[in-house]
Amino acid sequence: MTTILQIDASARVSRSLSRQLSRRFVEAWTAERPADRVIRRDVGANPPPAISEAWIAAVFTPEPERTDDQRAQVALSDELIAELAAADVIVLATPMYNYGMPAALKAWVDQVVRIGKTFTFDLARGDYPLEPILGGKTLVVLSSRGEFGFQPGGIREAMNQLDPHIRTIAHYLGVAEIHTVTIEYQEFGGERHAASITQADADATALARRLARGIARSAA
Amino acid sequence: MTTILQIDASARVSRSLSRQLSRRFVEAWTAERPADRVIRRDVGANPPPAISEAWIAAVFTPEPERTDDQRAQVALSDELIAELAAADVIVLATPMYNYGMPAALKAWVDQVVRIGKTFTFDLARGDYPLEPILGGKTLVVLSSRGEFGFQPGGIREAMNQLDPHIRTIAHYLGVAEIHTVTIEYQEFGGERHAASITQADADATALARRLARGIARSAA
Repeated sequence: MTTILQIDASARVSRSLSRQLSRRFVEAWTAERPADRVIRRDVGANPPPAISEAWIAAVFTPEPERTDDQRAQVALSDELIAELAAADVIVLATPMYNYGMPAALKAWVDQVVRIGKTFTFDLARGDYPLEPILGGKTLVVLSSRGEFGFQPGGIREAMNQLDPHIRTIAHYLGVAEIHTVTIEYQEFGGERHAASITQADADATALARRLARGIARSAA
Repeated sequence: MTTILQIDASARVSRSLSRQLSRRFVEAWTAERPADRVIRRDVGANPPPAISEAWIAAVFTPEPERTDDQRAQVALSDELIAELAAADVIVLATPMYNYGMPAALKAWVDQVVRIGKTFTFDLARGDYPLEPILGGKTLVVLSSRGEFGFQPGGIREAMNQLDPHIRTIAHYLGVAEIHTVTIEYQEFGGERHAASITQADADATALARRLARGIARSAA
């Protein structure tokens, strides 16, 4: 059995383009592999809190020494990390807000990237002391954006703080391969936007089928 | 009179290096110009909420047509934008969390970048439909990070999703010039970290004096 962690980060619950893509992806996946487990984490509708001084103090306190209050501080973080650790495939559906992650998605990242849980830190490693603990995961980034041209070589490449940030963080989430499907032109509307949606819908469906069948083959 | 907006984004209230830098900057500034106004916005201690579907609906509703609930949805955003609009100098003190902005700072950005308030949108402008409404502001970015080498040409340049993101957003906040002072090596400790703190402390103080005296001269 494969476990999919579906993360939806759009503040919009209705009329969200990124949610439409994650729905298509997961539907196409479960049509191929109905027995697989899907964990849903809706950070758009229920944003995790930003980390606090008390949270930082708690994660740097060894687990057996934590007070009840400190255990409560990290309870959600523990839960989010358990979901991540269980996932073989992470389906991350997110809009671009102000050229980067929505605050709610960054709050999720700040809750899950945690010493001793998702990474180890050792100064004996020299100038690169961090190493991820998790590994082997596939990340599918399904995103939407109001403008266009954020791809390498595009007119807004230098303004893209979403895709490079996700790539940078992915290493610490144990991601071994990344696939992306993107909708552009949302603020422009018109034919370019319509074509972008049609293409992304088809790509999300095709990607889900291809990955699901690849797992079926490699397990055979 | 000049107005300074001091934004502190660290989750740490005690032992925060970025807060130490903003304190030094503002102290040096007010020593030069004691009559200036300082607005403090502590998003680290009091993170703004992530924007929600109701918030989006409210900001796209013309102001006279908003319901009481919609007015409540945007009340904090109105307040944060008023602080930004009043500021001549924005002192943004922030740590780098997971290679980017803390979620609490991104929440502030998502609350203040708002159609009709901080930017206009007009498809008649072609492929670049957004224009900032505010202008002429000076942004001072005082930041701290656990690792090092995030500057252009540094070993972690491609992982830096903090400084390029702030630069990208700054345009929409009405920023005309940016100055940065950075502490590195926090997770490494040792002599490199100590030297970085000493240098940044001196740089923040010198920058405050230089900018404050420049304003005094240009107003003379």
